[in-house]
Amino acid sequence: MASDYSATPITMDNINPKVLKCEYAVRGEIVSIAQTLQQNLKDNPGSHPFDEILYCNIGNPQSLAQQPITFFREVLALCDHPSILDKSETQGLFSADAIERAFQILEQIPGRATGAYSHSQGIKGLRDTIASGMKARDGFPADPNDLFLTDGASPAVHMMMQLLIRSENDGILCPIPQYPLYSASIALHGGTLVPYYLDEQTGWGLEISELEHQLKTAKSKGIDVRALVVINPGNPTGQVLGEANQREIVEFCKKEGLVLLADEVYQENVYVPDKKFHSFKKISRSMGYGETDISLVSFQSVSKGFYGECGKRGGYMEVTGFSPEVREQIYKLASVNLCSNISGQILASLIMSPPKVGDESYESFSAEKEAILSSLARRAKTLEDALNSLEGVTCNRAEGAMYLFPCINLPDKAIKAAEEAKTAPDAFYAKHLLNATGIVVVPGSGFRQVPGTWHFRCTILPQEEKIPAIVSRLTEFHKKFMDEFRG
Amino acid sequence: MASDYSATPITMDNINPKVLKCEYAVRGEIVSIAQTLQQNLKDNPGSHPFDEILYCNIGNPQSLAQQPITFFREVLALCDHPSILDKSETQGLFSADAIERAFQILEQIPGRATGAYSHSQGIKGLRDTIASGMKARDGFPADPNDLFLTDGASPAVHMMMQLLIRSENDGILCPIPQYPLYSASIALHGGTLVPYYLDEQTGWGLEISELEHQLKTAKSKGIDVRALVVINPGNPTGQVLGEANQREIVEFCKKEGLVLLADEVYQENVYVPDKKFHSFKKISRSMGYGETDISLVSFQSVSKGFYGECGKRGGYMEVTGFSPEVREQIYKLASVNLCSNISGQILASLIMSPPKVGDESYESFSAEKEAILSSLARRAKTLEDALNSLEGVTCNRAEGAMYLFPCINLPDKAIKAAEEAKTAPDAFYAKHLLNATGIVVVPGSGFRQVPGTWHFRCTILPQEEKIPAIVSRLTEFHKKFMDEFRG
Repeated sequence: MASDYSATPITMDNINPKVLKCEYAVRGEIVSIAQTLQQNLKDNPGSHPFDEILYCNIGNPQSLAQQPITFFREVLALCDHPSILDKSETQGLFSADAIERAFQILEQIPGRATGAYSHSQGIKGLRDTIASGMKARDGFPADPNDLFLTDGASPAVHMMMQLLIRSENDGILCPIPQYPLYSASIALHGGTLVPYYLDEQTGWGLEISELEHQLKTAKSKGIDVRALVVINPGNPTGQVLGEANQREIVEFCKKEGLVLLADEVYQENVYVPDKKFHSFKKISRSMGYGETDISLVSFQSVSKGFYGECGKRGGYMEVTGFSPEVREQIYKLASVNLCSNISGQILASLIMSPPKVGDESYESFSAEKEAILSSLARRAKTLEDALNSLEGVTCNRAEGAMYLFPCINLPDKAIKAAEEAKTAPDAFYAKHLLNATGIVVVPGSGFRQVPGTWHFRCTILPQEEKIPAIVSRLTEFHKKFMDEFRG
Repeated sequence: MASDYSATPITMDNINPKVLKCEYAVRGEIVSIAQTLQQNLKDNPGSHPFDEILYCNIGNPQSLAQQPITFFREVLALCDHPSILDKSETQGLFSADAIERAFQILEQIPGRATGAYSHSQGIKGLRDTIASGMKARDGFPADPNDLFLTDGASPAVHMMMQLLIRSENDGILCPIPQYPLYSASIALHGGTLVPYYLDEQTGWGLEISELEHQLKTAKSKGIDVRALVVINPGNPTGQVLGEANQREIVEFCKKEGLVLLADEVYQENVYVPDKKFHSFKKISRSMGYGETDISLVSFQSVSKGFYGECGKRGGYMEVTGFSPEVREQIYKLASVNLCSNISGQILASLIMSPPKVGDESYESFSAEKEAILSSLARRAKTLEDALNSLEGVTCNRAEGAMYLFPCINLPDKAIKAAEEAKTAPDAFYAKHLLNATGIVVVPGSGFRQVPGTWHFRCTILPQEEKIPAIVSRLTEFHKKFMDEFRG
């Protein structure tokens, strides 16, 4: 029963049209259907041909029973309730290095006040720790004053879009397929997404000729292209860029005067021995480009990696190559929201300075980390193989990140049926998959794709013991679907 | 030594002008000076006529040594590291009701996964708890589906501004003086702040005739006024609205078709026996206005209250009186950032459902709460009296919130000196105060004020034992300042 809101002032016709334009598929219609099905299953067990919803739509490891890293949680708990630090029972409950680390962190927080607003860029001592971790990673120094700690990486991306976009004539080069945070943020700030297509045939290769072509096309339309977004490892595509390719990208940004926005949140998720993560900061510094040569922003998050602490909303960006006056404006934007949450800040420092050899937690920490990463690698391979064995489906390997992005060659009859149902063909497929199996994936159209091709994004995150059932349900579904719609 | 950034693409001339326009005084120039002085004191003790910086600029209680509420922190620590919940040592370290509450909360979180992204509005079970707390407070039901949990209240305010503001022709009525989050957010979203002046003579009274006058003036300039911001208890002004006044405000919004944006983050901070906080939801429901009669958004935060958990970044808004389609758009905005941090969500549920009579923690909790609130009341009174005793200073009482906002009748000579120093006269005063005493206040111009009047905002938060020293340093400074600049 719809209520009558005609006496209230705000309608779809008078809200900000940029909000209407913004889309965010990762939490779109498919997820709403899934939530309804889940409620059905709870209220009427047996009402569907499956007994649980398998959320493969979002990189949310702990929602699928991945356990948090013990050391990280020990430190967080102790920082939340420091008054137990000195009590004898605490020794029995927490590892010695977690207790020591909590003491160290509290020393870094002015007044040991974990409940106070911090500096708007984050607690200085924690930024020092993160900068040291970045230096250890890259071999080049990082300046804690370049770091802005944020509630996950998303607010950092918004901040940069807010800074760069003046009007719809400002363009941001984004990979297609892309993570919809970028399209959503560009839409909300009123800019233009300038697409560049990753080459599916070459494992989602990023070709400079394509960047040049799209930049030229955009310029010819009067678009002032301001920045290039690169997601490495790729989301939703899972590729890991090669070093030579990264150098070309840096050179391109340098030559064209573009800010390089490097989404590096999957830097710890690399699964293949022939690929390695290199930060764009390391690449540009190793090319001899210093602070005043290139504008580079790198995004990092505690939500990804092997730890997958999505709910903690920790993250940061490293901002280099902006003048002090512009930097001051970024600081002002950060300060309007005062600061990011302190637990997330602490966790951001922990992921960049995990236990070291000799620490009490080192072995258990390494075992937890290795178990997760090796299992993710196995899951990625199993799902990739399963997808490639389906009729009309091809799937690049997940070299990194948490996703597979298979291409489905849908039969014409399915495309026609989708048109009749007023749905994109890949959304049509994803809805059928969900209703038949309880598996939730995101239609490729939410990430954009080469027109006329159809994909979906599927995470590699369901627990390993569930993968065989997923494979068989998916395989069985796909066969039936193709049988139904094959020409 | 300034570096040369001429080879980088982003300059003050080509960033988003809305960012340039945005101002945020609470963390502005005075705070930067204070941080430099603090570093000086650390590097060269004795280098200034004071031995510490007293931050009275921001409502950040725990930065000034206020201790967190034990029960809240116990529950947060246990939820951060649930694997200790079953261990025997835990009984010795944590109160029984904190352990029980942690178990309850974990049951409310799907998969007990405190590290997972939640529903974009926040964990449903926690929203249920908050809604129950609101019902207990108001005597009217609250719907958990109306609640959007956010990282502090600031992102909620931004979300509403983003929804409502289409262009500079859209106006938002804001009190003057106002909390600069509103002016900053309106500037960033490209709207127009339509000021209405609170009447300092009547204790910062909110007159409907003034609202009508300003609305009419704005309309005559072609401004489409969309919403009215009311901050109650007031920030920076500290007044608590009377019930009859609140009814008039609701009636005004209803009549004029305005969304009522009610900043109610200081709802637990009321210090005078003749005033009481009433939510605008309670007021409008008690007037007979239901869900489809009036559009009302109420903001709440864990940063304020007696608990002052600023660093946890917990908060929420209750959104009522918007059609399902518009609500869907607000949900989409929330979902672009996935969710707010889970610790903040948990804390938001705790502040709305604290320990009850009979719970193990009840007495210690009540004692902690009462100690803080009664001390704040005393500090407010002492500072108010001290300010009123200064030459040329008048100060309304702080009925609620955490601030005093005295009016300083500055001598012409001081105003002239300020002009020569290219500073606002109140900023001139505040800088002199800081350099002479280490006391940090925010110049009134950061909040806006009646032209030609000068104020500053001073929190009532320094620890009670420091108040006498603050009073004497302030009194001595003011006397010298007036002696220097008196005509």
